[in-house]
Amino acid sequence: MLSGGDEDVPDGIGMARLQWTRLPTAEADGASTSAPADDELFSGAAVESLDYEVIENYAYREEQAKRSKFWVPYYIMLKWLFSLLIGVGTGLAAIFINLAVENFSGWKYAATFAIIKHSYFVGYFVYTLFNLALVFSSVYIVTNFAPAAAGSGIPEIKGYLNGVDTHGILLFRTLVGKIFGSIGSVGGGLALGKEGPLVHTGACIASLLGQVTCGCAAGVAAAFRAPVGGVLFALEEVTSWWRSHLMWRVFFTSAVVAVVVRSAMNWCNSGKCGHFGAGGFIIWDISGGQEDYSYQELLPMAIIGVIGGLLETPIESSFLAYGKQCSLSDAHTNPEKVSIGFTPGALFNQLTLYITKWRRTYLHKKGRRVKIIEACLISLLTSTISFVLPLLRKCSSCPEVEANSGIECPRPPGTDGNFVNFYCSRDKEYNDLATIFFNTQDDAIRNLFSAKTFHEYSAKSLITFLVMFYSLAVVTFGTAVPAGQFVPGIMIGSTYGRLVGMFVVKFYKKLNIEEGTYALLGAASFLGGSMRMTVSLCVIMVEITNNLKLLPLIMLVLLVSKAVGDFFNEGLYEEQARLRGIPLLDSRPKQIMRNMNAKDACKNQKVVCLPRVSRVVDIVSVLQTNKHNGFPVVDRGQNGESLVIGLILRRHNFSDFVKPASSKGKSIDDIHLTEDELGLYLDLAPFLNPSPYIVPEDMSLAKVYNLFRQLGLRHIFVVPRPSRVVGLITRKDLLLEEDSNTVTTELQSTSVRGLLNGKMLGGNAHLGRPLLDNLVIG
Amino acid sequence: MLSGGDEDVPDGIGMARLQWTRLPTAEADGASTSAPADDELFSGAAVESLDYEVIENYAYREEQAKRSKFWVPYYIMLKWLFSLLIGVGTGLAAIFINLAVENFSGWKYAATFAIIKHSYFVGYFVYTLFNLALVFSSVYIVTNFAPAAAGSGIPEIKGYLNGVDTHGILLFRTLVGKIFGSIGSVGGGLALGKEGPLVHTGACIASLLGQVTCGCAAGVAAAFRAPVGGVLFALEEVTSWWRSHLMWRVFFTSAVVAVVVRSAMNWCNSGKCGHFGAGGFIIWDISGGQEDYSYQELLPMAIIGVIGGLLETPIESSFLAYGKQCSLSDAHTNPEKVSIGFTPGALFNQLTLYITKWRRTYLHKKGRRVKIIEACLISLLTSTISFVLPLLRKCSSCPEVEANSGIECPRPPGTDGNFVNFYCSRDKEYNDLATIFFNTQDDAIRNLFSAKTFHEYSAKSLITFLVMFYSLAVVTFGTAVPAGQFVPGIMIGSTYGRLVGMFVVKFYKKLNIEEGTYALLGAASFLGGSMRMTVSLCVIMVEITNNLKLLPLIMLVLLVSKAVGDFFNEGLYEEQARLRGIPLLDSRPKQIMRNMNAKDACKNQKVVCLPRVSRVVDIVSVLQTNKHNGFPVVDRGQNGESLVIGLILRRHNFSDFVKPASSKGKSIDDIHLTEDELGLYLDLAPFLNPSPYIVPEDMSLAKVYNLFRQLGLRHIFVVPRPSRVVGLITRKDLLLEEDSNTVTTELQSTSVRGLLNGKMLGGNAHLGRPLLDNLVIG
Repeated sequence: MLSGGDEDVPDGIGMARLQWTRLPTAEADGASTSAPADDELFSGAAVESLDYEVIENYAYREEQAKRSKFWVPYYIMLKWLFSLLIGVGTGLAAIFINLAVENFSGWKYAATFAIIKHSYFVGYFVYTLFNLALVFSSVYIVTNFAPAAAGSGIPEIKGYLNGVDTHGILLFRTLVGKIFGSIGSVGGGLALGKEGPLVHTGACIASLLGQVTCGCAAGVAAAFRAPVGGVLFALEEVTSWWRSHLMWRVFFTSAVVAVVVRSAMNWCNSGKCGHFGAGGFIIWDISGGQEDYSYQELLPMAIIGVIGGLLETPIESSFLAYGKQCSLSDAHTNPEKVSIGFTPGALFNQLTLYITKWRRTYLHKKGRRVKIIEACLISLLTSTISFVLPLLRKCSSCPEVEANSGIECPRPPGTDGNFVNFYCSRDKEYNDLATIFFNTQDDAIRNLFSAKTFHEYSAKSLITFLVMFYSLAVVTFGTAVPAGQFVPGIMIGSTYGRLVGMFVVKFYKKLNIEEGTYALLGAASFLGGSMRMTVSLCVIMVEITNNLKLLPLIMLVLLVSKAVGDFFNEGLYEEQARLRGIPLLDSRPKQIMRNMNAKDACKNQKVVCLPRVSRVVDIVSVLQTNKHNGFPVVDRGQNGESLVIGLILRRHNFSDFVKPASSKGKSIDDIHLTEDELGLYLDLAPFLNPSPYIVPEDMSLAKVYNLFRQLGLRHIFVVPRPSRVVGLITRKDLLLEEDSNTVTTELQSTSVRGLLNGKMLGGNAHLGRPLLDNLVIG
Repeated sequence: MLSGGDEDVPDGIGMARLQWTRLPTAEADGASTSAPADDELFSGAAVESLDYEVIENYAYREEQAKRSKFWVPYYIMLKWLFSLLIGVGTGLAAIFINLAVENFSGWKYAATFAIIKHSYFVGYFVYTLFNLALVFSSVYIVTNFAPAAAGSGIPEIKGYLNGVDTHGILLFRTLVGKIFGSIGSVGGGLALGKEGPLVHTGACIASLLGQVTCGCAAGVAAAFRAPVGGVLFALEEVTSWWRSHLMWRVFFTSAVVAVVVRSAMNWCNSGKCGHFGAGGFIIWDISGGQEDYSYQELLPMAIIGVIGGLLETPIESSFLAYGKQCSLSDAHTNPEKVSIGFTPGALFNQLTLYITKWRRTYLHKKGRRVKIIEACLISLLTSTISFVLPLLRKCSSCPEVEANSGIECPRPPGTDGNFVNFYCSRDKEYNDLATIFFNTQDDAIRNLFSAKTFHEYSAKSLITFLVMFYSLAVVTFGTAVPAGQFVPGIMIGSTYGRLVGMFVVKFYKKLNIEEGTYALLGAASFLGGSMRMTVSLCVIMVEITNNLKLLPLIMLVLLVSKAVGDFFNEGLYEEQARLRGIPLLDSRPKQIMRNMNAKDACKNQKVVCLPRVSRVVDIVSVLQTNKHNGFPVVDRGQNGESLVIGLILRRHNFSDFVKPASSKGKSIDDIHLTEDELGLYLDLAPFLNPSPYIVPEDMSLAKVYNLFRQLGLRHIFVVPRPSRVVGLITRKDLLLEEDSNTVTTELQSTSVRGLLNGKMLGGNAHLGRPLLDNLVIG
């Protein structure tokens, strides 16, 4: 009937198709909505997996048919070019941030050290003012310009790749805000790191080119100068699905980052970059440290692992319980205000809880100005603590060192070494608390990891630092500045690790035990206990310290800390994501799903079906009256029976290449159609996905979950149990020998295929005509 | 009707159920058949993925219902215990092999060097005899005792985890044969390695406990002392699917291996293990080598990558073309006789081809004795070449070395160092060809990688070695002994790498260029070009050489060599698997599948359905008259319409824990039933999987492929397009909050569920009664 041209549908299809095409175009800049309602969740994973998930609709095929035979090589080239650009971009961003942070910090400490020769009070004033200015710039940029740049960003990216888009998380302005914001917050000496934000930065850059996974890897590769660790981080922690040829491209991006960063550092080595570039490519090189260990040491090392696993857990559990009781909804609306993270043990438990609660309920509701004041106050607090506490500490006399060990005590003025001389009465003294507290983070960690420096720190100083830094990290994390958790985690972990190391040295009385090694293991344990990564964290730790021989120890510690942590709760990012209202799908189905079936999951649903050919006004009315994102399209078969012919999405977008950065899209209400347009008929056939995945209604929900999760789907049709089996596909049926000649020919001639009759329709001209001749409404 | 007890089926169900249970029990020791017919392919992946793929049949649920609440923790504990055991077992196996190989080699060279002081002829004789004895023992064990132990084993393991079981590949006897066989073949000085066989060994050990993936990782971890590399190898190269908590257990296994191997080496360090254990944990430590590089060097390094990619390709392409034309079927029947591998360039092209052809067509058909003679002849040839060629080479005088550089020239007698004094007229001389040729593989590689040894090798010697070793590798690979390709690949790659390095040193005239670094890059490029691994190979190279600073260079070289190689053909293991008739499913669907639909794939099939209740004689007849492995079971619905109620497998096995090692199973013909038994009725309902995955008949085959491959399926039902949609499952529907209390309760009471009516049937007593009361034949 349609093929012959009917009175009811006079030429309407062509017109209406334009109309339908207009709908998505109007919404194209927003592949997601800001308020996820119903099934309106955008699937980043699905976009990333376009290579794999075969897109099936006729419009897409039309596109495909237009492509020349050079399209596939062109597409591949472009993908690789994008990977290259992401690598270069992220590498440059990382260098820029590092350069800025290290120079600001360098100037700050140089100025302060110069002034305190004359007056400690003026020195304190300058130091505090410097920090305040930097933190203010950061929080000002973030609150006024890029609110999505606050926090670490990793939970949001993880959510994005799992299929949930958080509003504004990958915008260009977020990228800019993140870069400048983290320069301010890290340069301003707050108890937070730049590594998490760098992952987010990489993801933002990559999102411009549609390859967020590569960006995450690039971010880690740039942040830790750990290319392999970056690849593994992206695969283990961030993405929800994994393909071996994605790994291949991610690997390339990481390699590019490594080359870019190394080149820049080589260039900086000659002193062109000020305070930046003094160290080598390895951030905290401890390759000269302890390389062997006795079995006696395994116990204290395992204890470090247990500490790492425990430290992070009690608070979160109670915090979550609290969250569930009263204000999980708050977390949805104020995502950046949730403070968990480095909040260990019974001591800080209640403290964090109250701070978070108070901040959430009172502070941040009062607007930007309060956020800015809050950040500035925390900056003042941090500056004061890090300046004043070392003043109260008595200096120790320098250890006797061998002539050519490379250790200088105290460090010469103007350098970044160990053994800081701060408020010491004599020249040959150093202040152990100032060495870790009144220093840049990188130097503090390097000093904690340092080998051949027995008894450098007193237990009192380490405990003081641990307690104070921990408190600061807890207080700082919820503020409206970009904030990573890697470096604070390493600081805290290495402090208690070094404490354990000191006791081991005392207890075992051996000289080949290095406190620095225990500090490294402590850092690994804390990160393992909070982030619950294994392989990637292990590789990152090895790459940042350049000590492969410690690998088995790091593995052991990570295993223990992760196991202990898993006993209590989920990983940091998962918990953060949950508190922010990002619904992540776990890799395993929940136990309860084994006792449910597919029908149970959609028990309360009213399925809204669209007929294949309908009036535009009806479609608009359907779209306006419900919030579903996908609609089954039904039609009549040859014998008049009802048939489901496919799935049509609320939005429709062919672009399989570059996903536009997420932003608030236009809704159906924003599109105004004329009376004439509304009266037209629209054939949905060219736009629908003719074969979405289906499951029988009584399939176990756990099985459905696996299907959904493994293939990165957004919709599955639940259908009645089939009445017959047409065929049974086994491995053998899928082992087709591909003859390259035939493929090329077929690609050109038969990329458009009949829908239900299975006939091959040659050429593209058929697209204009209805494809379901035998299926139209009788 | 059944529930009430019918005259036609008097008490028959109970009896017949026992019968049906007997059928699988009789076949239980063989989860696979030796000759894969039709869809008779055993899915190792499916067994490994039992955690994820939800097993659904009532008998399974009956099992599950019997389990106490401690079952889940018990199950998890057991899995971890198994991982531990696999780690310990593989570690010990690796130590045993290494110990034996290094001691045999050590005695051999010690004896030879002692004798040649008096007579070179007697020395040659002893050397050759020693090698011959070892190789004979190896080939004798393999041919008479464990034929599946020949070759590398990695392609077969890869196939197993992809879902194809090769006969006997994971038997205990194969394990034993592999261990002792590789001691003989590697100790006997053949041009092959022990690393591939160690992966196979690990897989065999792990297979005893049902976790082959862990075993592969353990094998690599043990072979290269590279625990992280092992995890990545298992994930990137071997498994076809990947889950993050599998990674976690694999990681644990690798860590255990590392600890076991390191402990053993520490124990051996005191000299208790003879020649073994002199080196440290790092196999070829080059951490003292070149750490910086100029941009000028990137070009020659990229050239190394290109060589690595090219070397391996031309021969394989032509070889494959040949294989397709005449004798691919041969490869099926004689899997161990296919020789590809290290067969580069135009020069060796025809040679390999002829040898392979000749060996396949004439030699190996003549039985075991010929195989043994062949291996012995190759051993003689190898011994002769490696002994005689260095004799023809003129010795060079030792370089002047600094006092404390640790380099001794010539090496002191009885040690394993560099600069071998062999057939030299003066004391202060060394024979550069003997240094790499008349040496154990490990030492030769260490010498090739060695830093601070400019001009140690003449180009002539390197080229001689390259050509000869290459030829030997080509000739050796097809013999009936366990044979790895890693070490020969590293030997060949490092030789041409060192050649390139020599030219670079000559050309750029810089002193900070190390030839050893180029040798390492050459090894990486050759392995990358042949195996096409990226991340895992990169990590393995870093772990075996302990030089993290070369990481970006290794990445670059691997990228180039893989890209060049991919341009021509597939990876080594894929090609090998193809030649051996192992049908691997790629991670991507073939291009042609985009133009086919599900129905096309099973066009020529005759689907054999079984009714739910049938006579045993009918079932036996169906099983005997076709070779299908899965059968749809149909029944009538309430309104008399036909309904597909599930899938039943030819074999039926509840054991979800330990898969018995593969072997030849009993077929239906081996089971003899009495007349009485044949006349009974059998209700298939308790044994079927009530909801296999289904796809509509016109779904694109590429989509079906993804479903099949990603979920590790064995059967998919192709069904007609559904007539209506019951519901639409989206992300939101899968985000159930799990309440731990309810789950426990439900697990105990409702683990058995009604099939089509969706009612929950409490208790286990119902299992005895038919579950489909309303569905029986009217």
